[in-house]
Amino acid sequence: MTGNQALFEYLLHRGDNALILAQRLGEWCGHAHQLESDIALTNVALDQMGQARMLLTEAGRVEAKGRSEDDLAFFRVEREFRNALLVEVDNGDFARTITRQFLFDIFQFHTLKALRQSENEFLVGFATKSLKEVTYHRTLSTDWMKRLGDGTALSHDKMQDAINVLWEYTPELFDITEGDAVLTKAGIIPDMEAIKLAWNEEVRSVIAEATLEIPNTLGYEARGGRIGHHTEHMGYILAEMQYLPRTMPEAKW
Amino acid sequence: MTGNQALFEYLLHRGDNALILAQRLGEWCGHAHQLESDIALTNVALDQMGQARMLLTEAGRVEAKGRSEDDLAFFRVEREFRNALLVEVDNGDFARTITRQFLFDIFQFHTLKALRQSENEFLVGFATKSLKEVTYHRTLSTDWMKRLGDGTALSHDKMQDAINVLWEYTPELFDITEGDAVLTKAGIIPDMEAIKLAWNEEVRSVIAEATLEIPNTLGYEARGGRIGHHTEHMGYILAEMQYLPRTMPEAKW
Repeated sequence: MTGNQALFEYLLHRGDNALILAQRLGEWCGHAHQLESDIALTNVALDQMGQARMLLTEAGRVEAKGRSEDDLAFFRVEREFRNALLVEVDNGDFARTITRQFLFDIFQFHTLKALRQSENEFLVGFATKSLKEVTYHRTLSTDWMKRLGDGTALSHDKMQDAINVLWEYTPELFDITEGDAVLTKAGIIPDMEAIKLAWNEEVRSVIAEATLEIPNTLGYEARGGRIGHHTEHMGYILAEMQYLPRTMPEAKW
Repeated sequence: MTGNQALFEYLLHRGDNALILAQRLGEWCGHAHQLESDIALTNVALDQMGQARMLLTEAGRVEAKGRSEDDLAFFRVEREFRNALLVEVDNGDFARTITRQFLFDIFQFHTLKALRQSENEFLVGFATKSLKEVTYHRTLSTDWMKRLGDGTALSHDKMQDAINVLWEYTPELFDITEGDAVLTKAGIIPDMEAIKLAWNEEVRSVIAEATLEIPNTLGYEARGGRIGHHTEHMGYILAEMQYLPRTMPEAKW
């Protein structure tokens, strides 16, 4: 695998994480239980969509075929998507959406912080810009974790259920592909072991403060997204997202 | 009708316009044909939602019962909504969504400009803040009107269809209720005849430049929103929007 191929795959992975999470969050658009949370979730969705556009545009630039962001978003099939499974898990209730967001925000936060030291100029610019947004997302979801975890008996139980469901999807976030190893060696992407340590420390501390517990998943870890093996949800997400552009591929308007 | 009641009704009318339009635009969230238009429409939806929150919060403050923005958004029935019918018309295709937006943006733009001279302090602040957002929406939708109207034969026809469907909903935007007349006299809201003139001039000029035509509706004008008589779409919009808060009214999380 050449460095360019490795970089293309990495950009796709990060771009697909943001794109699929934005789709999921967008499902809340106009369906939250308060006008304020509706706006907050939609704003996070828009930031993720913006990040997806930057990453997929750059992926297309790096790629020999030179596809556009829209080509990459709308005309790949399920097996070609590289997002981690965590972002495609269904929204469930508000507790699960917030917990998924929290687990992902902390991952993004530490990755972007480290990416600012990348040898790749695009990644430095991308990380610097996105870190501002993600710092705000992290404050928002951390705050919700504590309010809901340490809230009523009902909200506490719903949050604990959410962590129980989502925990097994977290190890995949830190997986290293063959290409990633090449990029890490070249100083283009950070050492994921260090990110994992920082993530673990922060996530465990917030979960403890929220009076919640890390579940015992008996070692089961859900993974597959990075090689295109997705959950049963993915087909529905893509059907929704890709329906219109595929029905009218030439209709630029 | 007291001045307070008249002001409450006016704030509801304007707040509901923004709220229902935001719901409609939110339906595009993750379903547009380009990542760029998806983001643009969602941003407009968020601005409208922000305006709705300000207006409904103020309506609750003015009202004797003192309901919250969420009470007003989620716990009124269809007959209590005061929005103009234009904003509840279904999205249809992208052409219709853009045309509806254009017709409404120009209305908002001229109304907000005039509201900056209001004798009511809240309305001055609201108009000043919102005008910045709406000025951008107006540029966006005007640009799309011209690109699509004067685009391909297909896009031209779709835009003409959109205007044909939507035109009969525009007169209602300028309707004056008994309460409005009181507010106009007190210098709290602007003279709608002047707004109508400015709207007509601008809309007709853009439509002409877009090589489109104003349809002959034989004088038919759809109205009723301001007295709570809505189209058959409204029930579905409210069902979607109100389902979650009504199912769990006490669940603050």
